[in-house]
Amino acid sequence: MQDMLDYRVEALTAEEHAREREVHGSLTQSTRELIDAVLRATLPDGELDEIRGEIDKLSARLRSNQLPGPFGISVTPEGTVRAHGNAVVGLRNAVAPPVQVEKDSSGKAWADVTLGAAYEGPPGMVHGGVSALLLDQLCGEAASAGGSPGMTGQLTLNYRRPTPLGPIHLEAHIARVDGIKTWVEGSIADADGVTIECEGLFILPRWAREAVERSSTVPIFE
Amino acid sequence: MQDMLDYRVEALTAEEHAREREVHGSLTQSTRELIDAVLRATLPDGELDEIRGEIDKLSARLRSNQLPGPFGISVTPEGTVRAHGNAVVGLRNAVAPPVQVEKDSSGKAWADVTLGAAYEGPPGMVHGGVSALLLDQLCGEAASAGGSPGMTGQLTLNYRRPTPLGPIHLEAHIARVDGIKTWVEGSIADADGVTIECEGLFILPRWAREAVERSSTVPIFE
Repeated sequence: MQDMLDYRVEALTAEEHAREREVHGSLTQSTRELIDAVLRATLPDGELDEIRGEIDKLSARLRSNQLPGPFGISVTPEGTVRAHGNAVVGLRNAVAPPVQVEKDSSGKAWADVTLGAAYEGPPGMVHGGVSALLLDQLCGEAASAGGSPGMTGQLTLNYRRPTPLGPIHLEAHIARVDGIKTWVEGSIADADGVTIECEGLFILPRWAREAVERSSTVPIFE
Repeated sequence: MQDMLDYRVEALTAEEHAREREVHGSLTQSTRELIDAVLRATLPDGELDEIRGEIDKLSARLRSNQLPGPFGISVTPEGTVRAHGNAVVGLRNAVAPPVQVEKDSSGKAWADVTLGAAYEGPPGMVHGGVSALLLDQLCGEAASAGGSPGMTGQLTLNYRRPTPLGPIHLEAHIARVDGIKTWVEGSIADADGVTIECEGLFILPRWAREAVERSSTVPIFE
């Protein structure tokens, strides 16, 4: 099995790192806009076919020089974790809303995000599984921020009522720690209050413990 | 609250419906390719900026005539449910892999799908929350296929080991039904066996029961 804590180190200068965020971040943001525009498209078929042809040309151009596989995770010499391919927070991943997670070292994490048409389940509502996706990431980041990194072992979600598309607030905090096990509680709320609550158990696998013990810093995901 | 079972009926002929699947389906598939190409892009900054400009032009063109909001769900006169905006199965949603769910009326649902770079969590692995997203949809479809539609009330996921990116198999079946409550069990497997198991509770809200009683057919999601 690939060692998931074996992050590659990339020697980017602070300037290169900032420029990367700008160029790749805005390219990805434009792609998110395109996803929404494609989803809601009502132009005549012929024009949609033309646009598809243009999109294919851009993909071919990008594919002339690309990473051989998924982005993976790398760290800068300053310790910033570049999880740019991450499906929730990834700077280069147009599937990700992206959620910009804030956190503190007590093991709290929170975020505000607005979910559009691409995250729909029931009409006008956030897909129940999208809520699970976002909460899994947020709970994992809370565990990690509190010094107890791990992989999801169990996740239980209680859906109180539907969550409308639009602005939502996410929260998570460490509830308790017992050795290699960390329990995190999280929630999603809309303007009227909590819609979903969850509890996640995060476990540091045996093979990963040594790597974490070697690591001196709490990772800063970006 | 919006009535989630109040699907609009669109009087598409079978031919229009087929043409729609072709045009919008391939436009969305091209957009999925672009998402992957953007994620793995390594071209020089200047060229990426140019490509971003081209993407913005295509979005503007699409936005000249579009749906006012999310796609929602509609049904054809033949009873096919067009959940084209759905984040897991949506024909028009480039965020969706998409998962093509097969099912039978005993309350079983299954699917094979290949997950690429856009669904990454740990390096080379499927994001734990993406697995939750897919299983939520699959369990809901199993409940619905078995005649017990409902909304997710609770979802519990047990992660046995990491799921590598690549081909995976999803399964779900109704475990038991008690009045308005349906319990569904599901799993994800890679070539070496099960990686994640889940149990979902699906509940038909009081306000929706009458609408379902009026409905004579098991919905066919596409």
